[in-house]
Amino acid sequence: SKSFRVVVLPGDGIGPEVVAEAIKVLEIVSEKSLDFDLKLESHQFGGCAIDAVGEPLPASTMTACLEADAILMGSIGGPKWGVNAAVRPEQGLLTLRKNLGLYANIRPANLASESLLDYSPLRPDIARGVNIIVVRELIGGAYFGPRKEQNAEPNVDAAWDTMIYSVTEVQRITRVAAQIALSANPPLEIHSIDKANVLASSRLWRKVVTETLTNEYPQLTFDHHLVDSAAMVIVSHPRKLNGVIVTENLFGDILSDQSSVIPGSLGLLPSASLAGAPSTPSAEFKPTLGLYEPIHGSAPDIAGQGIANPIGTILSAAMLLRYSLGLERPAQAIEDAVRKVLDTPAHGGHGLRTADLGGKATTKEIGDRVVEAL
Amino acid sequence: SKSFRVVVLPGDGIGPEVVAEAIKVLEIVSEKSLDFDLKLESHQFGGCAIDAVGEPLPASTMTACLEADAILMGSIGGPKWGVNAAVRPEQGLLTLRKNLGLYANIRPANLASESLLDYSPLRPDIARGVNIIVVRELIGGAYFGPRKEQNAEPNVDAAWDTMIYSVTEVQRITRVAAQIALSANPPLEIHSIDKANVLASSRLWRKVVTETLTNEYPQLTFDHHLVDSAAMVIVSHPRKLNGVIVTENLFGDILSDQSSVIPGSLGLLPSASLAGAPSTPSAEFKPTLGLYEPIHGSAPDIAGQGIANPIGTILSAAMLLRYSLGLERPAQAIEDAVRKVLDTPAHGGHGLRTADLGGKATTKEIGDRVVEAL
Ligand SMILES: CC(C)[C@H](C(=O)O)[C@@H](O)C(=O)O
Ligand SMILES: CC(C)[C@H](C(=O)O)[C@@H](O)C(=O)O
Repeated sequence: SKSFRVVVLPGDGIGPEVVAEAIKVLEIVSEKSLDFDLKLESHQFGGCAIDAVGEPLPASTMTACLEADAILMGSIGGPKWGVNAAVRPEQGLLTLRKNLGLYANIRPANLASESLLDYSPLRPDIARGVNIIVVRELIGGAYFGPRKEQNAEPNVDAAWDTMIYSVTEVQRITRVAAQIALSANPPLEIHSIDKANVLASSRLWRKVVTETLTNEYPQLTFDHHLVDSAAMVIVSHPRKLNGVIVTENLFGDILSDQSSVIPGSLGLLPSASLAGAPSTPSAEFKPTLGLYEPIHGSAPDIAGQGIANPIGTILSAAMLLRYSLGLERPAQAIEDAVRKVLDTPAHGGHGLRTADLGGKATTKEIGDRVVEAL
Repeated sequence: SKSFRVVVLPGDGIGPEVVAEAIKVLEIVSEKSLDFDLKLESHQFGGCAIDAVGEPLPASTMTACLEADAILMGSIGGPKWGVNAAVRPEQGLLTLRKNLGLYANIRPANLASESLLDYSPLRPDIARGVNIIVVRELIGGAYFGPRKEQNAEPNVDAAWDTMIYSVTEVQRITRVAAQIALSANPPLEIHSIDKANVLASSRLWRKVVTETLTNEYPQLTFDHHLVDSAAMVIVSHPRKLNGVIVTENLFGDILSDQSSVIPGSLGLLPSASLAGAPSTPSAEFKPTLGLYEPIHGSAPDIAGQGIANPIGTILSAAMLLRYSLGLERPAQAIEDAVRKVLDTPAHGGHGLRTADLGGKATTKEIGDRVVEAL
C-alpha cells in the first residue's frame, strides 16, 4: 500500500482545535483503506512559531513542507501579532506559498446543504443554487512584484507596489481553471475577471486567458467581467457567475472572500493552494503538492472553548486527498459524510450545528459524527 | 443674483434621457430662486463624441469643463466602443478626471426610502439602515501610475501597473472624508480600507490616514479594515461600515460598486467627483469644481425607450448644487422631493416606480413628479 507524508500546521487560535477533528477523519479514512497509508506529522507555524522561535516559518517547518506530499493547515494570526508588529504570521504564509510555488488557490463557495439557506445574508431566492469555485492566482501580481516602502530612498514621500504578470504565469493558472471546469460533468463555465479597461496587466491577463482557452480547451465556454462589475454581480445575481471564476491575486483575494459569505458561515468552507499542475496544456489534473486550509481566521475570541466549526478543515482534508494524493473516492466519502451530518435531523429538526450556525454542537461532536458517518 | 455655469455632458445610451430630467429639475430650482441663476450648456463627450469627431473628449468639451463651475454627466460607453477598440469612451473619462484634478469620488449607498427594502438582494434585516458613503481616491494608484503594456520593450512577455501613492495624495482624500464625516450631526465614523498586511502603498495609506485624522480631526473616530475583510462585511453585516469608507482608487472602484447594489437599484444612486477642496487641514468644505453623474451605465438595451430611472441623475444634480455651488437648501429640497415621489402612494399602493423597481413609470413621468413636488 502507498504511503503519503502529510505535514500538519495547526497554527494559532482555533487552528489546533479544528485541525484535531480533520486529523481524526484522515486517520479513520487511512485505517479503513488497504490501498494507502497516511503519515501525519505536526510542525510549528504562524504566531505560535513566532512565540517559540522568533519567526513564523522556522527552517525545520519549511523543510518538512518541501518534503511532504501535502500540507494541512489550521489558521494563523491574531491580535497578539498585529499589523504593526515587526514579525507577523502572514509573512510566513506568503513565504511558504512562494517557496512551495503554490500558484493556484482554489476556493469553492457553495451551500453544503439547502438547509443552510437561512444563514445566507442574501435573500434565499438569490442565494439558492450558488455554486462558484474561485481559482485565484496566488504567487504573482502586486503581492510579489517590486515595491518601495515609504521611507526608502529615493522619494521618501511615496510608496508603491507593482502588479506584474507574465504570459506563462497567466497560462498556468488558466489551465488549472480549465482542468477544474472539465472535472465536472457537464464542464463548468469559466468567468475570467480583470480590469482590462484600465490596467496593462489586466489586458495581458485577458489576452492570455482568451488564447489559452480558445486554443487548448475549445470545448469550454468562457467570458470576461470587469472586477467592479463582478463585485456587484456576486451580490445581486451570484448564480450568473456559477462555474469557475479565474482571476489574479489581489482581485482573487477580494472576490473569494466576498463570495465566501454567501453560504452563510465561513466555518464551512475549505480551500486548496496547489503547485505544479497541470504543467503542460494536454496534461491531466495530476496529484501535486498542495496546502489545504479552512478559509476562516484564527478567531481568538472563541479559541480554547471547543465550539469552533471544524467542517471547513474537514472539507479541506477531503480536497487534500483529491488534489495532492489522487484519492478521489475517500475525498468524496468525506464530503458525503459531512453533508449527512448537516442534514440528518438532530435536536431541533435540522442537523448538528456549531454556534456559527445557531447550534450548540461542539467542535468534537461534529468531528465524531463525521467519523461515525464514514 | 449669482450666476453659475454648468456644463452638461449627456453622453451615450440612456444618458441623454436621464440628463433631460435632471435639467428640468435644475431649471425649476433656478427659476424659483432670486439668489442664483444657472447657465446650462451641453457638450459632446464619450462614444457620441468618438462617432462625431473621432475622440471621446474633444478639446472644446475639455475647455468648457475647465471654465465651468460644475459638470453634470449622464453615462458613457456601450458595446459599439468595446474593450478592444483603439479609442474608447472610458479613456475620455479618465483624462477628464485627471485634467480637472477630480481626486475625490463620493458615492453614497443608502436606501432612499424604506419602501425599497424589498429590492435589495440582501435580506431585509441585513439591508435595513445601511448608510455608507464611499470616498474613493480617483486620480492616483494603479489607474495613473507608470505601466508597461505587454508588447512594449524590454521583456515583451510581461505587463505591469504601479499602485503608487504619495503622502500628500493620501492627506487630501483623508481630509475630504473627514469633512464629509463632520457634515453630519453627530459626525459619521470613518472606515479606512487598505491591504496593509501585503502592500507598501497600503502601509503608507494607513499611516497617513491615521496621522491626518489623529492630528487634524481629533473629534472623529475611525478604524482600519483590510479590503478582503471589508468585501465580506459589506455583504454580511453592512451596517458595521455605516459612515464614511475612505479608500484608494482600485479598492474604491470595487467596493463602491459592491455597496451600490445593496439599495436595490443602481438607478437610484448619484455620485460626485470633486477637485480642490478642502485644500488645507483647517478649511471648511468650500464649493469646488465637480463632476456629477449617476452610478449606472449607459444601458444600451433600454436606450431610447424612455423607461430609464432618472433619480440617480436628479440626485447627482442635488449633489452638484451642494458641493460645487454651495447651495445646500435647494439641494436638500430636491432630495426631499425625490423621497416624496418614491413614498407617495400611486397605483399599486407604493410610490411611482420605473421598470428597474418593478413599476411602469416613464423617465419623464418621474422627472415631472419631482418638479411638481418642488
Ligand atoms: C493573510 C493574507 C496575506 C492572505 C492574502 O491576502 O493572501 C489572506 O487574506 C488570504 O487570502 O489567504
Ligand atoms: C469606466 C471606468 C474606467 C471607471 C473606473 O474604473 O474608474 C468606472 O468603473 C467608474 O467607477 O467610474
